[in-house]
Amino acid sequence: MPRFAFRIEYDGQPFSGWQRQADQPSAQGAVEDALSRLEPGPHTIAGAGRTDAGVHATGQVAHADLSKDWNPFRLSEALNFHLKPAPVAITACAAVPDDWHARFSATGRRYLFRVLSRRAPPVHMRGQVWWVRHDLDAVAMQAAADRLIGHHDFTTFRSVQCQAASPVKTLDRLDVETHPVPGGTEYRFHVAARSFLHNQVRSFVGTLERVGRGAWSPDDVSAALHARDRAACGPVAPPEGLYLTHVVYPVDPFEPD
Amino acid sequence: MPRFAFRIEYDGQPFSGWQRQADQPSAQGAVEDALSRLEPGPHTIAGAGRTDAGVHATGQVAHADLSKDWNPFRLSEALNFHLKPAPVAITACAAVPDDWHARFSATGRRYLFRVLSRRAPPVHMRGQVWWVRHDLDAVAMQAAADRLIGHHDFTTFRSVQCQAASPVKTLDRLDVETHPVPGGTEYRFHVAARSFLHNQVRSFVGTLERVGRGAWSPDDVSAALHARDRAACGPVAPPEGLYLTHVVYPVDPFEPD
Repeated sequence: MPRFAFRIEYDGQPFSGWQRQADQPSAQGAVEDALSRLEPGPHTIAGAGRTDAGVHATGQVAHADLSKDWNPFRLSEALNFHLKPAPVAITACAAVPDDWHARFSATGRRYLFRVLSRRAPPVHMRGQVWWVRHDLDAVAMQAAADRLIGHHDFTTFRSVQCQAASPVKTLDRLDVETHPVPGGTEYRFHVAARSFLHNQVRSFVGTLERVGRGAWSPDDVSAALHARDRAACGPVAPPEGLYLTHVVYPVDPFEPD
Repeated sequence: MPRFAFRIEYDGQPFSGWQRQADQPSAQGAVEDALSRLEPGPHTIAGAGRTDAGVHATGQVAHADLSKDWNPFRLSEALNFHLKPAPVAITACAAVPDDWHARFSATGRRYLFRVLSRRAPPVHMRGQVWWVRHDLDAVAMQAAADRLIGHHDFTTFRSVQCQAASPVKTLDRLDVETHPVPGGTEYRFHVAARSFLHNQVRSFVGTLERVGRGAWSPDDVSAALHARDRAACGPVAPPEGLYLTHVVYPVDPFEPD
């Protein structure tokens, strides 16, 4: 059976998350249902990252085994046709070897977290950013973020429901970017690692927001990290600001784009 | 009566346009209704630009005369409270002189038009971009756009319903910017002039899109301009890609932001 990889974009708002669940809409379920319109199912696709309810993706990757030797372009066109009107789209599709696995072949994940800081509520970004009504100090947030880079026991920043075997991970990047918007500022947190713990990015951003508003210092973040204690974490940021933007493979199956 | 200026952001999708109309939701009506929650109405506000149904704004400006000498910050906070859940927000508010007029004091308007060019449909940008399924040639579009810059009779690019006294306008800027997006490219058209004819920006973009897809040459655009004939225009681009981003005044009433 030929194996195909898909790059998938979705709006997290209507979904209970990436993962298929009984009686609840999911992004995985939307793609599997579209596949069953092309070939008799049921289909089960493997995704590179499990995103929670409300979390978005612009670069989720999944693979599926199909019976027909589809032309990848025609396959993505047919899937996008059947995905309507769900806010899910296939933005790339490629044939991959039988032993290629969207999750286990991945060597990196990148996330974006968007925070809208202004008094006025979001309009065009509604449901797509975390809205905070106060100013944030980007320099202080970056200084605190730098304390988290590297190889650490991230127990503090891990959901109690996390099923990873070890809390030790290597954080490769955590950068804060500022963009002016009418009446305020959008802060974009760019985060990269080989893999993440459950709620790790939202725990980072919720903690850094406390630094941005002046309630915590970068030293407080270091102390929280070294405590290796979930109770030392700041509040977990809400899901609507988070995007899975990129899954990295030794060879990008979708190149040339 | 103290006069106040407002900078207003709105999503055009649920509205019949900026202008209040009987029995149809409008952005102007939403703001006027919010004002009447603060002071007995009816209120009539004057907007700098009339946007059509589906057209967005991130920088519409309007003014209103109120009886109370409001603190501008508290006034914008109260309006944003009463505007909920409409996708309309006040992003700046200032007291202005009695002879200041949002429309007649303006010396410039800037618009943004967003085109999403890719095979996959828009997900997070749904209703906020013009989706075209083919590639566009940005260099050719810019070369054609350059033919439109300057002082011209823009009859070709003017809706037959346009009520402006003269079709002669000076176009100060028409720049095409490209931004990569998963599976394609977003083209952003930045347009600036003292004032515009009805449907002028959408007529420009619809015509330039024909150049981008190779159906027209820059010379064809020059010929269309010089024809001074509405029938020589390309198709009018749909409203959902258009944003009124900025209204320019000799002194910006909202500085410092």
